[in-house]
Amino acid sequence: MRPVSLHTGAWRFPGAYPDANFNFAHLKRFAQTLERGRFDAFFMADHLAVLNMPVNALKRSQTVSSFEPFTMLSALAAVTERIGLVGTASTTFDEPYHVARRFASLDHISGGRAGWNLVTTSNPDAALNFGLDEHVEHGERYRRGREFYDVVTGLWDSWADDAFVRDVESGLYVDPEKMHVLGHKGEHFSVRGPLNVPRPVQGWPVVVQAGSSEAGRQVAAETADAVFTAQSTLEAGKRFYADVKGRLDTLGRPREHLVILPATFVVVGDSLDEAREKRALLDTFVHYDSGIASLSIALGHDVSRFDPDGPLPEIPETNDSKSARQRVIDWAQAEKLTIRQLAQRIGGVSGLEMVGTPTMIADQMEQWLVEEGSDGFIVVFPYLPAGLDDFVDKVVPELQRRGIFRREYEGATLREHLGLPRPGNRFFGAERLR
Amino acid sequence: MRPVSLHTGAWRFPGAYPDANFNFAHLKRFAQTLERGRFDAFFMADHLAVLNMPVNALKRSQTVSSFEPFTMLSALAAVTERIGLVGTASTTFDEPYHVARRFASLDHISGGRAGWNLVTTSNPDAALNFGLDEHVEHGERYRRGREFYDVVTGLWDSWADDAFVRDVESGLYVDPEKMHVLGHKGEHFSVRGPLNVPRPVQGWPVVVQAGSSEAGRQVAAETADAVFTAQSTLEAGKRFYADVKGRLDTLGRPREHLVILPATFVVVGDSLDEAREKRALLDTFVHYDSGIASLSIALGHDVSRFDPDGPLPEIPETNDSKSARQRVIDWAQAEKLTIRQLAQRIGGVSGLEMVGTPTMIADQMEQWLVEEGSDGFIVVFPYLPAGLDDFVDKVVPELQRRGIFRREYEGATLREHLGLPRPGNRFFGAERLR
Ligand SMILES: Cc1cc2nc3c(=O)[nH]c(=O)nc-3n(C[C@H](O)[C@H](O)[C@H](O)COP(=O)(O)O)c2cc1C
Ligand SMILES: Cc1cc2nc3c(=O)[nH]c(=O)nc-3n(C[C@H](O)[C@H](O)[C@H](O)COP(=O)(O)O)c2cc1C
Repeated sequence: MRPVSLHTGAWRFPGAYPDANFNFAHLKRFAQTLERGRFDAFFMADHLAVLNMPVNALKRSQTVSSFEPFTMLSALAAVTERIGLVGTASTTFDEPYHVARRFASLDHISGGRAGWNLVTTSNPDAALNFGLDEHVEHGERYRRGREFYDVVTGLWDSWADDAFVRDVESGLYVDPEKMHVLGHKGEHFSVRGPLNVPRPVQGWPVVVQAGSSEAGRQVAAETADAVFTAQSTLEAGKRFYADVKGRLDTLGRPREHLVILPATFVVVGDSLDEAREKRALLDTFVHYDSGIASLSIALGHDVSRFDPDGPLPEIPETNDSKSARQRVIDWAQAEKLTIRQLAQRIGGVSGLEMVGTPTMIADQMEQWLVEEGSDGFIVVFPYLPAGLDDFVDKVVPELQRRGIFRREYEGATLREHLGLPRPGNRFFGAERLR
Repeated sequence: MRPVSLHTGAWRFPGAYPDANFNFAHLKRFAQTLERGRFDAFFMADHLAVLNMPVNALKRSQTVSSFEPFTMLSALAAVTERIGLVGTASTTFDEPYHVARRFASLDHISGGRAGWNLVTTSNPDAALNFGLDEHVEHGERYRRGREFYDVVTGLWDSWADDAFVRDVESGLYVDPEKMHVLGHKGEHFSVRGPLNVPRPVQGWPVVVQAGSSEAGRQVAAETADAVFTAQSTLEAGKRFYADVKGRLDTLGRPREHLVILPATFVVVGDSLDEAREKRALLDTFVHYDSGIASLSIALGHDVSRFDPDGPLPEIPETNDSKSARQRVIDWAQAEKLTIRQLAQRIGGVSGLEMVGTPTMIADQMEQWLVEEGSDGFIVVFPYLPAGLDDFVDKVVPELQRRGIFRREYEGATLREHLGLPRPGNRFFGAERLR
């Protein structure tokens, strides 16, 4: 949920709140609706810059601004009860002591509902806001990210779970025998510790990874509790799923200790036609100028001189992405879209889509789960609040009816929602659980 | 309010919540009580390490842990309406882009109630958690702090107040003419900008400074909206007040654009005796081992071999602090305290104290205000919730009766509570107001 919808026309949709991205009252309502729908978590992506785009796109984009994740998620923690709160923090532009403290604090404030989306930050503009002239190299980012993770988890283990005694009678507040001074000295970080926050409720907040490169997948397999991913088709999803779960096998980690969650854009209608109409209406709110540029890139061919309201002519194959080209051609044929409509569609959002009735959407989700394409989904809402309400009121009951989604929260923590074990403390007590 | 009381015995006081420092439900109740008492703000100090102290003191101290300020203040923002929320952030161990974003976000989420306690961090242990072997030198910390402030305020001015148009009809979300790219390149920082958050509700969140050195006072006079200070006597307070306000005169800043707020420890009783009894009871919860060390330091004389339950013998004058010694001797004489009682008093909290009936406390506060010792106070509660409730239920009405404290919030923002102007934008519109 950053911006509240990834679709660039969403803020103009009838009934939408144009300022939703920056209005806490709306975000509170959305989080409470998700909680009513028994979602595992509310996810807050994050970027450390105004994203670099042509001024013509920037001025139409609600991605220009969003709340800093900790301020927003903590405020939401105070007005929700059960839903997990997953925030993004960058290992390239932050310090492990800060990140460890914030997630530990959020975990305590929320009663064990915090999750960290660990990103190495691919956006090069961020570097310019943090004293660098150019971005840190990709491999170096992941090496730093890996060590960052070791330091953060080490700091979370600074105190045994039962270190804080608070015995009024004897005056013993904390047992110093149950404190571990980390004393980390590595290639990128030197951090003494201990953390000035007791061990998190979940032991460690849930760690999410969203990298897609070789290095990103490997770090995920080694460290993450969940993986966020963008896979446009079930076939691609199954390949990704097999790849990452295979890495767990190699590492000797149980497969169910990491859940794989592709992002999917969902438009719900009472009929397929109605869903498609909503989708088409939404697309009309994408400005033609930004759409046509995206379309030309997808087709590997400048289409700006064709008649916007005519059909797509035959486009020669090029060396550019064949799958992106084929996707557009499939849309053009199946739904008889004009150039303008194609431009607006591809300029709105890209990736996996589920557009249809609640039954059709539930069928698709069930197929992904059964065929090992994923363990669940990051649901991207087309526009809010209506798209979110539709999902919670119509799709969730259908998933519940099939027994593939909970009717009530069974656990209290995000780890429990996701079926993940609570990690032991590497410095105290029983051997670590993973 | 970090820990919830600065008094080291407070967590053991009858009726106190020993875990209050780390229990959001309690902190929420405290913040709501302060709001009921029409306080300007809730202040959250912060340290980036477990404070260095002998293990014998550490194990008895609730200062070992606290929430990270942004997580806590944002959660409080969601459950309060009017009270300001002032958090500490270090200019030595953080990045201006992060700090600017967080305070801007907190300001939006809270509707203009955010304040930044700008500290350069004097605790050398913090450095060890941020990759350094030793602390950054004092002068260098303040030079960095000064530049940090320039970058943060520049980032807050990234957008004109009316930059975010969100015009659904035309599809214009933000006016790019009203965006300023900072392009800061200085001795310590290079930050491109713009900030990915609209201009804060208050223009700039309130900036507080708590430095006491020459450099600290000068930075405060140049930049701060409020100064937090520790002044034990009215005479010292008046000297400090005159010094800092004099610096404003020299700089051509109006005196009322900076408010000076000394910390004062307040114990309320229905009679002076009752207040003193509460104070004495509280002191009994300070462990003798830590108290006796503090007492020996204050007197410049090892007193650990005297009879703990006997009176203080004649102590020779030394070259150490004469005022600290005299203070102890005054206590011993006025209240006939034993060595143990003196040790426990000085080991509990130090600095300005107001112990007495609501009338006596209001008299003292009024005197400080009238004689230009301060513009207000940081009230330090002896124990919670009772010490806080006493203040709100008994002292606040007395101050209101005298017309020296508001009965209702008149404004919506922290700046309005403090009587401070909203800064203009240095890059857009009218000339800056200060
Ligand atoms: C669902 C999802 C959410 C993501 N959220 C963020 C984010 O909040 N911030 C960010 O910098 N990158 C985010 N990413 C991008 C990834 O972290 C990563 O940078 C990108 O997938 C490139 O992977 P690589 O660096 O391994 O090549 C996200 C990716 C996905 C699929
Ligand atoms: C009321 C008050 C609150 C303070 N809060 C903090 C704090 O939260 N964090 C911190 O590192 N220092 C805090 N300080 C310490 C000052 O920022 C500063 O480091 C100290 O007064 C030394 O000043 P100097 O560096 O100018 O010599 C506080 C001081 C006072 C008087």
